[in-house]
Amino acid sequence: MNLQRVADKLGLSKERLEGLQETVVKKSSWPQPRLLRFEKTASGVEAGTAIFDNGEIVYGYPKIRRALMLAPALKKRFSDLVAVEEKMNGYNVRVASIDGDVVALTRGGFICPYSTEVARRLLPEEIFEDHPEIVLCGEMVGPENPYVPKDIYPTDSIDFYLFDISMKNNKNTQGVHKTHEFAREYGIKATAFFGEFRAESAYAPIVKIVKQLGRKGREGVVIKDPENKSTPIKYTSSESNCSDLEAAFRYYNDYALDFFVSRAVREGFQSVEWNESEEERKARALRIGESILLPLVDTVNKKRNGEQIVQHVQIRVRSLQTAREFEYHLRRSGMRAIFDQPEPEDDGYLVRITKLVMSTNDKTQALIEGEMW
Amino acid sequence: MNLQRVADKLGLSKERLEGLQETVVKKSSWPQPRLLRFEKTASGVEAGTAIFDNGEIVYGYPKIRRALMLAPALKKRFSDLVAVEEKMNGYNVRVASIDGDVVALTRGGFICPYSTEVARRLLPEEIFEDHPEIVLCGEMVGPENPYVPKDIYPTDSIDFYLFDISMKNNKNTQGVHKTHEFAREYGIKATAFFGEFRAESAYAPIVKIVKQLGRKGREGVVIKDPENKSTPIKYTSSESNCSDLEAAFRYYNDYALDFFVSRAVREGFQSVEWNESEEERKARALRIGESILLPLVDTVNKKRNGEQIVQHVQIRVRSLQTAREFEYHLRRSGMRAIFDQPEPEDDGYLVRITKLVMSTNDKTQALIEGEMW
Repeated sequence: MNLQRVADKLGLSKERLEGLQETVVKKSSWPQPRLLRFEKTASGVEAGTAIFDNGEIVYGYPKIRRALMLAPALKKRFSDLVAVEEKMNGYNVRVASIDGDVVALTRGGFICPYSTEVARRLLPEEIFEDHPEIVLCGEMVGPENPYVPKDIYPTDSIDFYLFDISMKNNKNTQGVHKTHEFAREYGIKATAFFGEFRAESAYAPIVKIVKQLGRKGREGVVIKDPENKSTPIKYTSSESNCSDLEAAFRYYNDYALDFFVSRAVREGFQSVEWNESEEERKARALRIGESILLPLVDTVNKKRNGEQIVQHVQIRVRSLQTAREFEYHLRRSGMRAIFDQPEPEDDGYLVRITKLVMSTNDKTQALIEGEMW
Repeated sequence: MNLQRVADKLGLSKERLEGLQETVVKKSSWPQPRLLRFEKTASGVEAGTAIFDNGEIVYGYPKIRRALMLAPALKKRFSDLVAVEEKMNGYNVRVASIDGDVVALTRGGFICPYSTEVARRLLPEEIFEDHPEIVLCGEMVGPENPYVPKDIYPTDSIDFYLFDISMKNNKNTQGVHKTHEFAREYGIKATAFFGEFRAESAYAPIVKIVKQLGRKGREGVVIKDPENKSTPIKYTSSESNCSDLEAAFRYYNDYALDFFVSRAVREGFQSVEWNESEEERKARALRIGESILLPLVDTVNKKRNGEQIVQHVQIRVRSLQTAREFEYHLRRSGMRAIFDQPEPEDDGYLVRITKLVMSTNDKTQALIEGEMW
């Protein structure tokens, strides 16, 4: 890798890039191809940005910020039209072809072996033959998503939904219309597009969409400028906030503390902005309370019955090597997981994975034995 | 102050004490008498320990740890009898006479001018004439408690409830029976004593007491070894946990994140241990949810109506100087507060205080203007 050339492309001095290599820029030499990744945003370079050995850069997908109060956020951020798309609940990948091999990068800039196999299976090769520079930004969702398994999407396994397009060595993304045109052209799935609205009258239809999504257990929306002139924002359903709370309280000692509070605070703002009746507010309060209490009760009961507190997920792979590599990938990401013997299936293997949540497991065990908090 | 002698009493080397003065031992030269205070627990010396200029030491009151699962905690901690006292919801002070002047120390080891005036008013002088070495450990509670105002106790203003006795220069406390005898002897209030139980059968009566206290909005119990042979534990009512949540979500950006989560987690353990029915669990979930949602709604609504998010408290003082000094005391404790003009009353002054919760105030303002989270 020619560090001077990479630094030039990133808009940094070579010295600055070298300095960052001590702190925020980390090497990842596995799986091939080797890369440098930005662990945090620094010097204007988005976290997750990956610089491959051949000098090609795949920029990190910009973090989308969240509106707590939708109407004023629309007014403040957008002037003309807004495009509304579904925000899906899975994990974010960027898929690109590097030296002829398609790879899927996680948010942090690692190559994920499982996501890579899934992407190669789901995305037609011709995409990268026609557009060798393209970076497909999308969400991996479904019950065989090993990070956030959800059975609310029309797949039994895992699926890729495109939500934006970018190019290697280029920070910009191409926005709503080009993305959906592209998905149609190549027959791949894209996140649902709910239409365009005038910014000043978008509040009511967006709330309606979010409520409908919520009823189906889906997460919410991303609101974009159709001309890509301002940065998108997201806004989520109460059901999704509560489902987050549920997961967090089930594994209460393994989640960051701000995760809990932020979800609860969203509910307060939404309840005010939606001008809820006393009855609606009571239903929301019960939903919040149950998504806190019931998973806790479940975790404590499980531990009392002598069960381990763990999380069961599964993946389906074509090759055994993908399973082995994914095991290594989870380990290097700091996750502890036990992989069952792969079960052969028609065209591959089902692999059941037990993710350990040691901190919650041990804490709960100690507390039910009478340890103090 | 003879540092060598103080170090000897604390069981430290002089060098160690000098070393600590750079980090955890801080000087406080106001109000008189001057003192050194342990900001954190270090080298076995409890946080809040105060060493006065004359060399006398008032040790910090040991932190009482909390049971989340009561029955196993009783079994683990106690072998014979347990004494059950009310845990009151106010703030903890230690009152002692130093060179003939009674002073009240906060948990952190500061002399609080307001608490000192209250202690001098409520506690008979003869206590300290008869026992110049005594340290009275107690809770200041009531609606004119400027830290945790509560109108659930039988006072219109503020009251002092003794919960333990210690001696200057001595880490030990004297325990339940001596404390209550002492309170009776001098006609001062002590925290309610609910009786003694055999440890192995104490669970049921304690839960009954905690439920009764909860119904009255009171906090819970402290469970002590009557012979003072093991350290006490505390256990609180659901209503108290929820009341904490309510306060925390009202000022959601001014509280430490673990405050929220710990309160919620307690509820899960209690619900399991109390073996609640589905209906009871639903009522608890609603209570939790409402104590999160409603104060948030209230805060957002207030801000929308152009009000400042502040906390109103009041104190009643005999002397104007106490009010002025308390203002300074709050400021040095890092609290921002606006003191109204004192209103003269029969035997003193009523002082209304507006405590600023700037972080919640500003955050809420920004969010309702459409700022992103």
